[in-house]
Amino acid sequence: MSTLFVCITCRREGDPPDAPRPGARFYESLKAAAGDLEIVPVECLSNCTRSCSAAVTAPGKWTYVIGHLDPDRHIGEILQFARSHKAHEQGLPVWRERPDHIKRNTIARVPPMTIPGVAK
Amino acid sequence: MSTLFVCITCRREGDPPDAPRPGARFYESLKAAAGDLEIVPVECLSNCTRSCSAAVTAPGKWTYVIGHLDPDRHIGEILQFARSHKAHEQGLPVWRERPDHIKRNTIARVPPMTIPGVAK
Repeated sequence: MSTLFVCITCRREGDPPDAPRPGARFYESLKAAAGDLEIVPVECLSNCTRSCSAAVTAPGKWTYVIGHLDPDRHIGEILQFARSHKAHEQGLPVWRERPDHIKRNTIARVPPMTIPGVAK
Repeated sequence: MSTLFVCITCRREGDPPDAPRPGARFYESLKAAAGDLEIVPVECLSNCTRSCSAAVTAPGKWTYVIGHLDPDRHIGEILQFARSHKAHEQGLPVWRERPDHIKRNTIARVPPMTIPGVAK
């Protein structure tokens, strides 16, 4: 099972502080379209200047942080990436199969606690 | 035990492709100064434009990705942050105790798979 964390406090530069947060709207849309994916709301992924933000992870797999997500445009792409992550044993979706926005807006990735083939 | 992942392929814009990588030098310096911290080399944390890069994590704790690290200037700060992460039950070092470079260059953070207090 891969988990998609979605920042619900993300807002864009210039948004009024008391307006509904794009991150919260993004979370609701993703949850409605998630199917078999687990969507978990988070208050801040510390990627504020590159929002909206989401991260996909699973026990024993790589973690990916994705930025510059538009709640109106990138629902399908982030869900597709999360499903590819779920399907790959190590959470490393093949590059050519990653949606364009994901390729261009991967903010960071972090290995699982134990990396196969890496001596400690 | 907290683990500090260090990107060993990081290089700065303009560095010759065949020159020794600043990331690799950073890793060696950190390893020598690590004490009781686990330092693990990684090939690419996908934070290339904001390198050098490191990430601190532990089972059941938050993960932090830190960028713009200078191998000659930030050894003490990243090790201090990793020790604070290790000492905090959830891996959430108190803001005022974070070194300045860490405060200003936290690229992203990702929750543990189970977030206390967050309903799924």
